[in-house]
Amino acid sequence: MNIKIVRYFVSKLIQVEAGLMLLPCLISLIYGEPFSNLLSFLIAMGIIFLISFVITTKKPELKTLHTKEGMLIVALTWISWTCFGALPFVISGEIPFYIDAVFEMASGFSTTGASILRDVESLSHSTLFWRSFSHLIGGMGVLVFALAIFPTGASETVHLMRAEVPGPRFGKLVSKLKETALILYTIYFVLTLITVILLIFGGMNVFDSFCHSFGIAGTGGFSTRNASIGFYNSAYIEWVTGMMMLMFGMNFNLFYMVILGQVVSVFRNEELRVYLSVIISATGIITLTNHLNGIYTDLATNIRHTFFSVSSVITTTGYLTVDFSDWALTALTIFALLMFIGGMAGSTGGGFKVARLTIAGKSMFNEFRLMQNPRRVTVTKFNQSPLTVDQVTRIRNYSLAYIFCLVLIILLITPDTPDMQTAISAGMNTFNNIGVGFATDGSSVPFTDYNVFSKIVLIFSMIAGRLEIYPLIVLLSPNTYLSKS
Amino acid sequence: MNIKIVRYFVSKLIQVEAGLMLLPCLISLIYGEPFSNLLSFLIAMGIIFLISFVITTKKPELKTLHTKEGMLIVALTWISWTCFGALPFVISGEIPFYIDAVFEMASGFSTTGASILRDVESLSHSTLFWRSFSHLIGGMGVLVFALAIFPTGASETVHLMRAEVPGPRFGKLVSKLKETALILYTIYFVLTLITVILLIFGGMNVFDSFCHSFGIAGTGGFSTRNASIGFYNSAYIEWVTGMMMLMFGMNFNLFYMVILGQVVSVFRNEELRVYLSVIISATGIITLTNHLNGIYTDLATNIRHTFFSVSSVITTTGYLTVDFSDWALTALTIFALLMFIGGMAGSTGGGFKVARLTIAGKSMFNEFRLMQNPRRVTVTKFNQSPLTVDQVTRIRNYSLAYIFCLVLIILLITPDTPDMQTAISAGMNTFNNIGVGFATDGSSVPFTDYNVFSKIVLIFSMIAGRLEIYPLIVLLSPNTYLSKS
Repeated sequence: MNIKIVRYFVSKLIQVEAGLMLLPCLISLIYGEPFSNLLSFLIAMGIIFLISFVITTKKPELKTLHTKEGMLIVALTWISWTCFGALPFVISGEIPFYIDAVFEMASGFSTTGASILRDVESLSHSTLFWRSFSHLIGGMGVLVFALAIFPTGASETVHLMRAEVPGPRFGKLVSKLKETALILYTIYFVLTLITVILLIFGGMNVFDSFCHSFGIAGTGGFSTRNASIGFYNSAYIEWVTGMMMLMFGMNFNLFYMVILGQVVSVFRNEELRVYLSVIISATGIITLTNHLNGIYTDLATNIRHTFFSVSSVITTTGYLTVDFSDWALTALTIFALLMFIGGMAGSTGGGFKVARLTIAGKSMFNEFRLMQNPRRVTVTKFNQSPLTVDQVTRIRNYSLAYIFCLVLIILLITPDTPDMQTAISAGMNTFNNIGVGFATDGSSVPFTDYNVFSKIVLIFSMIAGRLEIYPLIVLLSPNTYLSKS
Repeated sequence: MNIKIVRYFVSKLIQVEAGLMLLPCLISLIYGEPFSNLLSFLIAMGIIFLISFVITTKKPELKTLHTKEGMLIVALTWISWTCFGALPFVISGEIPFYIDAVFEMASGFSTTGASILRDVESLSHSTLFWRSFSHLIGGMGVLVFALAIFPTGASETVHLMRAEVPGPRFGKLVSKLKETALILYTIYFVLTLITVILLIFGGMNVFDSFCHSFGIAGTGGFSTRNASIGFYNSAYIEWVTGMMMLMFGMNFNLFYMVILGQVVSVFRNEELRVYLSVIISATGIITLTNHLNGIYTDLATNIRHTFFSVSSVITTTGYLTVDFSDWALTALTIFALLMFIGGMAGSTGGGFKVARLTIAGKSMFNEFRLMQNPRRVTVTKFNQSPLTVDQVTRIRNYSLAYIFCLVLIILLITPDTPDMQTAISAGMNTFNNIGVGFATDGSSVPFTDYNVFSKIVLIFSMIAGRLEIYPLIVLLSPNTYLSKS
């Protein structure tokens, strides 16, 4: 364990966060907010720089990064960004209780979108902006974001980015890492900007359009309105939001392939096919149950709200137009499955990821075939090419780790919830970075009333979900600090 | 696919069931029941023999059994036994609706113990006996039971027994199959008899003692009383039942090892240690939450009811002394975990099995270690000896298949349940062959009010759970009938 390099990276990376706080300062000035708002961000920036200098000022000589150090840096950076990012809320008094502020920031960076606030409309512009902006940063990755600005060699950053970018990876699109990041970032920002423009066209004001676009891009879900997207009561805005969420739940490589003119390969992409089939089937079934239960008499309204909710849940965004927690139990069970599935690998969406589910499912059916004919040779294929045993094993292990963590989280928060449905909802909600659930006391229920212990569990749940478990396990494992290698 | 041998075996095996129906006939005579009761069993026997002759009368020449045929025979035999075993209930009119009667028999043979009956005390002795006796047969396996009587060569029966005996297998205790069956059966019957005697000592009448002992031995849970074991209100009977359930949840090889004097090896058995640790921890935690919530003021009563419930749930028996569905949510979540864990491999208990869970958990932690140091070589060990990659892979695949089936079952019955907790409870309950749950409308709620579709799903759930999925998949897969091999 090269502790010096860990300290060095963490120290530098939190400075980047302090730098990013200049943006809400600018917003504060633009909207002519009281000086205390601006001051809260400036004080937070001061504290961060001070702590950064305490951690380290020296550049370490040995700069090799192993997987373990990479994981540790990622885990520590995410926790630091969350803890420091919460400071302005407490200093300005807009979220007076520190654990609540940390919860809000963890929810922001992890692109969960769950909130402890009952009334977001009373917040200042600078606070609302910082909340939503954290989705934009967290969506692509705190470190990827920071490393793009941060001058280091590509070789050092490989492990850092590996540990942070969610989803299993198959094939290389662009071999040079910095180049890849640049291309994906360009696509990300262009799509975000398109969303902003489309929303402004729909009559949403400029500030709200930016904040909601950040939430859509990062598949986060923080809104500037208490009623979320439902506030605007506009079919246009709902369809735009629904479709753009769907886009940000896709693998960004697909967009790059479209730019390169490889449209045929895009349509042959197996993960995309599964993703779209799931969305279409879920929308179909839930529309049907809603119709049968007489929730909507008008089919167009029914499809609109159902599609929006399905898109919001599977991409793990969490915007709402209606409260679906009182829909039929079949609908809720399908939502629970969608929550679990999540977006595509290489998207900003959370959850288990479509690719993993597809591969785990296929390898399971291969096992069934093997049971019938033990001498048969079966190979799991994905995107028309066979996977190595190692890749399949990794996904199976991740499945078990995923279930283990989810059950543990649900178990830990259970004493603080009124019933099992609410406990499951809160666990899925945070661990899959969604932000809405089907708690029996309202699907968009804020997490205000959980006790401090449960809030800390849920904060870890959100970060563990976003980083796909392993970095936090490295952080918490005594082995990391005891072994010499 | 050698369809002739499948027909031959199924035809012979259902005759065994008809033969076993002589026992309830005897009970009917002993208790001087009306002739109609005796007649219902005799008619059922007649129907079975008739159908048996229709299926086949010829002994096939080629008698080689492949895994696929073995699986198919097991699946078909279980379904036939369930469907034919239900006939006497319908003919006598004690359970007039056929699907209900099939549900009751599926619950009996699969040793689930879930019932569609609200009032079991009104049933005749012969019916009560046949219900409970199905637990004794189902516990060790319908086929194992039948094959012990049925004269065939050992080589043919290997595949049949493989497909039916639950749990992963490690090491061979006795290499000759027929000999193993004989030893295990002797242990099974001796333990059952000890239970009968202990219960009679506690003041339970002879008939009830036998019926409850069958339920304990098969980890079933059918009672002759509406209030289950709670009816007797006797601490002695509750402790005996609790301890004996615990015994039948253990690997029967352990008892054989005790007989052989290998007591040290028994205590070194890893699965046993995990099993006992889980029971002790669960009893401890739930006793504490019950105490904190003021459910019991008296510690002895608290421990007695908690231990009984824990033992009943983890062994997947399902006897009750109290209704635990109104205990704290933490307790219910622990019960849900116990339901999932189930008994030890090689016991009559259902569920996922302690051995599988231990191995899946260990292989997961190995993966965590691998993440920190990719060059490390990790081997999953069980009982102090390393497992092959193949064994670990099989368990991981089973885990995924298990979760897939459970989610599918819950999804299918959801429209017919009032809330998610009840749907999860019913799914776990049947798939893990338990018989009690934590439905929000009472933990011991009978399945009377489910609709026909849900009842059929639950019947499949119970049989799939008992046979550990694969035989039913072979039965339902088109591949089985299409492929030539």
